[in-house]
Amino acid sequence: MKVAVYYNNQDVRIENRPIPQPKSDEFLVKTKACGVCVADTMEWYLTPRAPLTLGHEAVGVVEEVGSDIHNIKVGDRVVVHHHIPCLVCEHCRRGNFTMCESFRKTHIHPGGFSEYFTASAAHAERDTLILPENVSFKAGTLVEPLACIIHAIQKAGVKAGDSVALIGTGTMGLMFIQCLKYWGVRKLVVYEMLDWRINKAHEFGAQNVWKPGNDPQAELEKVQELFQSDGADKVFIAAKDISAMKLGMNLVNKGGTVMFFATPKPEESIEIFPSHIFFNEITITSTYSANHLDTRMALDLIASGDVWADKIISHTYPIEELSDAILQTVSRQESLKCVVEFNN
Amino acid sequence: MKVAVYYNNQDVRIENRPIPQPKSDEFLVKTKACGVCVADTMEWYLTPRAPLTLGHEAVGVVEEVGSDIHNIKVGDRVVVHHHIPCLVCEHCRRGNFTMCESFRKTHIHPGGFSEYFTASAAHAERDTLILPENVSFKAGTLVEPLACIIHAIQKAGVKAGDSVALIGTGTMGLMFIQCLKYWGVRKLVVYEMLDWRINKAHEFGAQNVWKPGNDPQAELEKVQELFQSDGADKVFIAAKDISAMKLGMNLVNKGGTVMFFATPKPEESIEIFPSHIFFNEITITSTYSANHLDTRMALDLIASGDVWADKIISHTYPIEELSDAILQTVSRQESLKCVVEFNN
Amino acid sequence: MKVAVYYNNQDVRIENRPIPQPKSDEFLVKTKACGVCVADTMEWYLTPRAPLTLGHEAVGVVEEVGSDIHNIKVGDRVVVHHHIPCLVCEHCRRGNFTMCESFRKTHIHPGGFSEYFTASAAHAERDTLILPENVSFKAGTLVEPLACIIHAIQKAGVKAGDSVALIGTGTMGLMFIQCLKYWGVRKLVVYEMLDWRINKAHEFGAQNVWKPGNDPQAELEKVQELFQSDGADKVFIAAKDISAMKLGMNLVNKGGTVMFFATPKPEESIEIFPSHIFFNEITITSTYSANHLDTRMALDLIASGDVWADKIISHTYPIEELSDAILQTVSRQESLKCVVEFNN
Amino acid sequence: MKVAVYYNNQDVRIENRPIPQPKSDEFLVKTKACGVCVADTMEWYLTPRAPLTLGHEAVGVVEEVGSDIHNIKVGDRVVVHHHIPCLVCEHCRRGNFTMCESFRKTHIHPGGFSEYFTASAAHAERDTLILPENVSFKAGTLVEPLACIIHAIQKAGVKAGDSVALIGTGTMGLMFIQCLKYWGVRKLVVYEMLDWRINKAHEFGAQNVWKPGNDPQAELEKVQELFQSDGADKVFIAAKDISAMKLGMNLVNKGGTVMFFATPKPEESIEIFPSHIFFNEITITSTYSANHLDTRMALDLIASGDVWADKIISHTYPIEELSDAILQTVSRQESLKCVVEFNN
Ligand SMILES: NC(=O)c1ccc[n+]([C@@H]2O[C@H](COP(=O)([O-])OP(=O)(O)OC[C@H]3O[C@@H](n4cnc5c(N)ncnc54)[C@H](OP(=O)(O)O)[C@@H]3O)[C@@H](O)[C@H]2O)c1
Ligand SMILES: NC(=O)c1ccc[n+]([C@@H]2O[C@H](COP(=O)([O-])OP(=O)(O)OC[C@H]3O[C@@H](n4cnc5c(N)ncnc54)[C@H](OP(=O)(O)O)[C@@H]3O)[C@@H](O)[C@H]2O)c1
Ligand SMILES: NC(=O)c1ccc[n+]([C@@H]2O[C@H](COP(=O)([O-])OP(=O)(O)OC[C@H]3O[C@@H](n4cnc5c(N)ncnc54)[C@H](OP(=O)(O)O)[C@@H]3O)[C@@H](O)[C@H]2O)c1
Ligand SMILES: NC(=O)c1ccc[n+]([C@@H]2O[C@H](COP(=O)([O-])OP(=O)(O)OC[C@H]3O[C@@H](n4cnc5c(N)ncnc54)[C@H](OP(=O)(O)O)[C@@H]3O)[C@@H](O)[C@H]2O)c1
Ligand SMILES: [Zn+2]
Ligand SMILES: [Zn+2]
Ligand SMILES: [Zn+2]
Ligand SMILES: [Zn+2]
Repeated sequence: MKVAVYYNNQDVRIENRPIPQPKSDEFLVKTKACGVCVADTMEWYLTPRAPLTLGHEAVGVVEEVGSDIHNIKVGDRVVVHHHIPCLVCEHCRRGNFTMCESFRKTHIHPGGFSEYFTASAAHAERDTLILPENVSFKAGTLVEPLACIIHAIQKAGVKAGDSVALIGTGTMGLMFIQCLKYWGVRKLVVYEMLDWRINKAHEFGAQNVWKPGNDPQAELEKVQELFQSDGADKVFIAAKDISAMKLGMNLVNKGGTVMFFATPKPEESIEIFPSHIFFNEITITSTYSANHLDTRMALDLIASGDVWADKIISHTYPIEELSDAILQTVSRQESLKCVVEFNN
Repeated sequence: MKVAVYYNNQDVRIENRPIPQPKSDEFLVKTKACGVCVADTMEWYLTPRAPLTLGHEAVGVVEEVGSDIHNIKVGDRVVVHHHIPCLVCEHCRRGNFTMCESFRKTHIHPGGFSEYFTASAAHAERDTLILPENVSFKAGTLVEPLACIIHAIQKAGVKAGDSVALIGTGTMGLMFIQCLKYWGVRKLVVYEMLDWRINKAHEFGAQNVWKPGNDPQAELEKVQELFQSDGADKVFIAAKDISAMKLGMNLVNKGGTVMFFATPKPEESIEIFPSHIFFNEITITSTYSANHLDTRMALDLIASGDVWADKIISHTYPIEELSDAILQTVSRQESLKCVVEFNN
Repeated sequence: MKVAVYYNNQDVRIENRPIPQPKSDEFLVKTKACGVCVADTMEWYLTPRAPLTLGHEAVGVVEEVGSDIHNIKVGDRVVVHHHIPCLVCEHCRRGNFTMCESFRKTHIHPGGFSEYFTASAAHAERDTLILPENVSFKAGTLVEPLACIIHAIQKAGVKAGDSVALIGTGTMGLMFIQCLKYWGVRKLVVYEMLDWRINKAHEFGAQNVWKPGNDPQAELEKVQELFQSDGADKVFIAAKDISAMKLGMNLVNKGGTVMFFATPKPEESIEIFPSHIFFNEITITSTYSANHLDTRMALDLIASGDVWADKIISHTYPIEELSDAILQTVSRQESLKCVVEFNN
Repeated sequence: MKVAVYYNNQDVRIENRPIPQPKSDEFLVKTKACGVCVADTMEWYLTPRAPLTLGHEAVGVVEEVGSDIHNIKVGDRVVVHHHIPCLVCEHCRRGNFTMCESFRKTHIHPGGFSEYFTASAAHAERDTLILPENVSFKAGTLVEPLACIIHAIQKAGVKAGDSVALIGTGTMGLMFIQCLKYWGVRKLVVYEMLDWRINKAHEFGAQNVWKPGNDPQAELEKVQELFQSDGADKVFIAAKDISAMKLGMNLVNKGGTVMFFATPKPEESIEIFPSHIFFNEITITSTYSANHLDTRMALDLIASGDVWADKIISHTYPIEELSDAILQTVSRQESLKCVVEFNN
C-alpha cells in the first residue's frame, strides 16, 4: 500500500509498504479520505521528529476486524478518532478526557495519509463512528476538527443569548460561526484580515465581519457599541498569532471568558496584568483537541446540515500530492480545508 | 460625632462632624465595629485621593429609619454591605453582580470609621443583614471579607472532593481554609512564608502547610506526590505578591483552575505562555469583592461556627488609634484581622 | 377610557372609567395591544372572582412618567411585564424568581384590556422593555408567553443535541418548536391531535409530528425507534389535559426529564409509581410563568426572527370584541394567538 | 469453598463448591467481608428467582490475576463494585451511568456471600479500588452503599447552604447525615419513627430529629418555622414506605426537589397533583445505585473519617449465619448495618 512519509512541507515521499495484518484486538480500515490539519504543516513541531507518517482526520471502510471486536463489521463506513481516552483515570473522571495520558498515546497506524490503517479494539469501542448514508467520506473528515470546536464552545460555557467575538475565519473559524449559531448565539462579531475570508464569513452567516484596526481601544469601543455592553461575553481566538490573542484579550466583557483555541509556538508569550483580570473578573481558558462526546455531536451537525461540510472543503488531492495540499494550507491563498482522497 | 480622616498610613486624623440626618430613603446606623482591610492600607491606591473617610466592614445598631424604608427598624443589630448591585443591568442578569456599575458607586456615608453612618433604602432592601444573637458586633465585621472568599470559591467551581492549593494564610487565607473544608475539600496544601502563620494554618485545620522553596519544579512535584495527580484542581492565590501568582500558576492540575483572589499594583504583570495554557487546558480566573448572596452565606458560616471569627480577629483599637491598626495590618507581625471598636 | 370587565367567557362588558393619574412612583401607558392567554379563558379559575379586569400580555406607549422614575420616558414603545420579583427574597436569591411572593402580588392596573394602564417604579426598573423598531406592538404581546417557554427550556436543562418530545402545538407548542431549534435541538418529535395544527407544526419546522395513538407502549416504541434510544431526553407537555401528561410520562428516556408546562384543574391528579421513577431515574419538573431574564431573551428572539411572531398571531380584535377573542381561543378552531388591538 | 445460597429470608444454605479458576480476563478475590443490603432481604423481589447467590458489598484480597489484567496484583486489598458501566453508550455519555445496559448485567461470581469470587478485566479497570491501610475490610463494605448516597446528593444538586429534610435514619439515613454535612448543609431536619434511631441520628450530628406527626400540614409548618422558608430546598426519602414519600412530598420548598432514594414495591403508587407541582415549581427525581465516580468519593470519605464506618456497622456474622443477618436487618431492632465476615 502507498504511505506518505513526511520530511518537511516541501518533501513528502510515497513509500510502498505491506498492508498491515490486524491482530485479534485490532481492525483494518481502507482509507477513503483524510483532511490536512494546520498541525500537519507546523515545521517547527514536525521536522525535529521527521520522517513521520501523518493524518488524523481519517475516514474509510472497515476491511478486516479482529476476533475480539464486536461493535463494528466489515464494510462499515467509519470515521476513526485517532486519540481515545482511558475513561477511568483521574482526568477522565473529571471530564477532562483530552488530558488523559492514554489519549495522547493512542494513534491509528501508520496514519490517515496511507491507503490502509489499523486501530485498536479500544478505538472501535470508544470512538469509531458509523457515517450515515447522507454523509460522504470527504465530509466525514471534518468530524475531528469540528469536534474540537464543539469542545471549545462547551468548555467556554456558551449559552443561548451570549454575545461572542471570534478571531480568525479559516476552516475552524467558519465552522465556529455555524456552531455558535447552533448554540443560540445571535450577537456575533468576527475579526479576519483576508478579504476573501471576510466574504466567506458573510456567506457562512456572520453579519458583522471586521478587519482588526491598529487601535485596540477603538476596536473595543466598536464591540461595545455593537453589543451595547462592556464587551463580548465570550471571545474565541481561532488563529495562532500572538496578535490575535492580544486582540481577543482586549474585547472581552467584564465577567467574560477568553478562549485560546489556537496555540502559538511554545516560546511565544503574552504579558497579562493580574490587576486588570481582577477588577474585571476575566477568565482565560483553553481547549486542546476533542473527546468522544464531541465527535458524536460533530457528526450529528454535519449530517443535519447545520455545518456545511461541502463548502468548508475547498481542495482535494491524491495522496501523491500531499505536499501540495500542505503548501496550499500554509499559503492561506483562497483555500479552506484541503483533503486527500483515495480512489481505492 | 468622631470621624477618622485618612491622609496616609501614618496620618489619620479624628474630626468632629454633626451626626447626619437620614432622608426619607435613608437610614442611620450607630457604628459598633469596623474591620481594617488590606485595601485600607494600600497607600499607592489611597493617597492620590486623600483625605478620605474609609471603613467598609461596618456593623452597628440602627438608630433612625427614613419613612420609605420598611424592612429594618430602630434597634436592629445590622451589618451593612457598602456596595450593592442594581440587580437588573446586563451584568446583574448574568450573575456578575460585582461588575455592576451601581455596585462600585454605592457607599455608606461617611464610612465605617465614624461613630455613625447612613445608607440608602436600596442598602436596606438588598444587603443589610440582621446579626443573630450569637454573633457579636466584632464577629459581624468579618461578613464582608468572608463573603469575598465565598464568592471566589463559588466562581472557581470548587466541588466536594477537589484538591486545592492555597497561597497565603493571612486573615483571608485562614478563612479560606475553613470555607474549603465546608465545601468538601479534604485534599489541601497551603503555602505560607511566615512561621507563626504556618502555625495558625495548622490550628485552623490545614494538615499540609509548606514554605515555598526556590525551585518551582520541585514544588510542583511535591504537590503531585501529595495529591497523586498532575497538580491541584483549584489554586487560590490569597496574597498580592507577584511571586505568589507565579507560584500558583505552577501548581495547577491539567484541566485545573487558578484563581487570582488578590491583586498586585496595576503596573505589575506576569508573562504567560498560551502554548502551555493550551496543551494543559488551564483556566485563569479572578473575583473582585462579593455580592448579596455571598454575604448571607458568610453570616451563616459565622453563626454556625464553621468559620472561627473570634480567632481571626487578633487586635481591637479605638477609632483614635486607626493609624496603629493600619500599621499593624501592614506589618503582618503576629497579627491577623484588626478591628476598630466603638463604645458608644 | 374603555376598560373591558370580565364576568364570564360570554359576558365581557365595556366600562368607561377615568384615565388614571400616575403617582410619583408610577407611570402611565397608552395600550396598543394585548394578547389573550389560555388563563384568560379558564372559567373555573376566573368566575369565582369576577368581575375582573384582565390582560397581562400588554404593550403600549409611555404617556406619563412619575417624578421618581428615571429609566423610561414619554413616547417609549414598551412591553410591561405585569409580574415582577423582589430580587432579594430567599426564592429570588435561589433564582426561583416566579416563586417570589411579590411576583404574584404585582400587577398592572387595571390590566391590558383597557385603553390605558399604570405600573410601578419597580415595573419600570425591573421588567419594562423598550421594543426595537423592527418589533411591532402586536408582536410585542408575545414577549410574555414566549418568555414562559424560555423559562421552561432553561429549567429543563435542554442542551444542544438533546432529543425532545413535545405534546401540544397550540400557540405555546409552536413557539416551543422554534425555541428548541434555537437551543440546538434537532431530534424532535411533536404530538398533536388537530389536523390543521399538525400542518402548522410542519410549517414551523418540525419534521416528525404525530397524532397520539391509543396504545402508550406503541408510542414509546415509535419514539425509541426514531431517537435510537430508550426515550426522549426531555419531554415538554404544553397541553393542559391529563391525557397529555400521561402520554408525556410514558415517552421519557431513562435518566430524562418530564416538564409539566401546563396545569390541569387543581383537583385533577395522576398516579405515579415511585418504583418506576426509581429504576429509571426519571425527573418530573414544572415551571410557572417567566422572569425578567426570560422576557429579555424573548424579545431578542422575536427581534431576530428566530420566533415568527407574525405567524403565531392569527386573529386580532378591537376591545369591544374581547369575548369573541376568548371564545375563539377556547374553540381552538383554526386559530392560534388572538390579540386585542387599540387604535388610539 | 463455602457459598451461601438464598431460598428465602429464613432459609439460606451453605454449599461447597470448587474455587473458580479465573480466565485470562478475570481475577479471583478471597472474600474478607460483605455487607447485607436491604435489597438482600426483599422477599417479593428475590424468592421468585431463588435459589440465588447474593452479596454486592464485597471486599477481599486479590488471590489470582488473569494475564490480560495489569492494573491490580495478587495481595491487593480491594473493594470490587459489582456493577460497572460500559462508559460509551448513550446513557454513559450523558453521565447516567447506572442506566447503562451493561451496568445491570455485570456481576461478581457467585457473589460476596462466598469465600471466593471472580470478576472481569472491566471490573478491574473501571471500579476495583485499593483500600488504603487505614480502612479495614469491614469498613470497605460500606463503599457501595455510601456511593449510592453520594450519587443521590449529586443528582439532587445539593449546594452548600441548602436546607434539607431527610426521611429515615437507617444505615443509609445516618450516612446521609454525615454526607450532607460534608456537602455544606447546616440546615437539616431529620424524620424517624424509632426512638433508638432518633438517638443515633443525634449522635451522628443531626440537631433536629423529629418523629412524624399525623397532621401533614403541621409538619410542614414546623419545617417552615425551622428554616424560615416555604419548606426544605431538598428532601431525601431514605425509607421505602409510601408514607415516607407522602411525608416528603409535603415538606418541599417552592422551587425545591424531592429525591426518591428508596423504592416501594412496583405496584405501590402515589397520587400527584400536576397543578400543585406547577404552581410551586416542584421537582421530583430519583437515583438508582451508584457509579464509578461515586465509589471513589465514598472510599475517600471513609478514609478521611468524614463518615463513621465503624459506628454504622452494628453486627457481624460468619457466613453460616447469613439468614440471621438478614432477619436482623429486616427487624430494624437495634441494628444498623450487618456484615458477614470471613476468617480465611
Ligand atoms: N483547540 C483545538 O483543539 C484546535 C484544533 C484544530 C485547530 N486548532 C487551531 O485553530 C487555528 C485555526 O485553524 P484554521 O485551520 O482555521 O487556521 P487558519 O486557516 O490559519 O485560519 C486562521 C485565520 O485567522 C486569521 N488571523 C490571524 N491573526 C488574526 C488577527 N489578529 N485578527 C484577525 N484574524 C487573524 C488568519 O489571517 P492571516 O492569514 O491573514 O493571518 C487566518 O485567516 C489553528 O491555529 C489551529 O492550530 C485548534
Ligand atoms: N478578591 C477579593 O474580593 C478580595 C477581598 C479581600 C482581600 N483580597 C486580597 O486578599 C489578599 C490577602 O488578604 P489578607 O488580609 O489575608 O492579606 P495578608 O495578611 O497580606 O496575607 C497574605 C499572606 O500571604 C503570604 N505570601 C505572600 N507571598 C507568598 C508566596 N509567594 N507564597 C506563600 N505565601 C505568600 C504573605 O507572607 P509575607 O507577609 O511573608 O509576604 C502573607 O502572610 C490581599 O492581597 C487582598 O487584597 C481580595
Ligand atoms: N408554564 C407556563 O408558564 C405557561 C404559560 C402559558 C401557558 N401555559 C400553558 O400552556 C398550555 C398550552 O397553551 P396554548 O396556548 O398553546 O394552548 P392550546 O391552544 O390549548 O394548545 C394545546 C394543544 O395541545 C393539544 N393536546 C391536548 N392533549 C393532547 C395530547 N394528549 N396529545 C397531543 N396533543 C394534545 C390540544 O389539542 P386538542 O385541542 O385537540 O385538545 C391543543 O391543540 C396551556 O394549557 C397553558 O395553560 C403555561
Ligand atoms: N437509591 C439507591 O441507590 C439505594 C441504595 C441502597 C439503599 N436504598 C434504599 O434506601 C432505603 C433505606 O435503607 P436503610 O438500609 O437505611 O433502611 P432501613 O434500615 O429500613 O431504614 C429506613 C428507616 O426509615 C424509617 N421510616 C420509614 N417510614 C418513615 C416515615 N414515614 N417517617 C420517618 N421515618 C420513616 C424506618 O422506620 P420504621 O422501621 O419504624 O419503619 C427506618 O428506621 C431502603 O429502602 C433501600 O432500598 C437505595
Ligand atoms: Zn483517562
Ligand atoms: Zn447591576
Ligand atoms: Zn423575591
Ligand atoms: Zn453504558
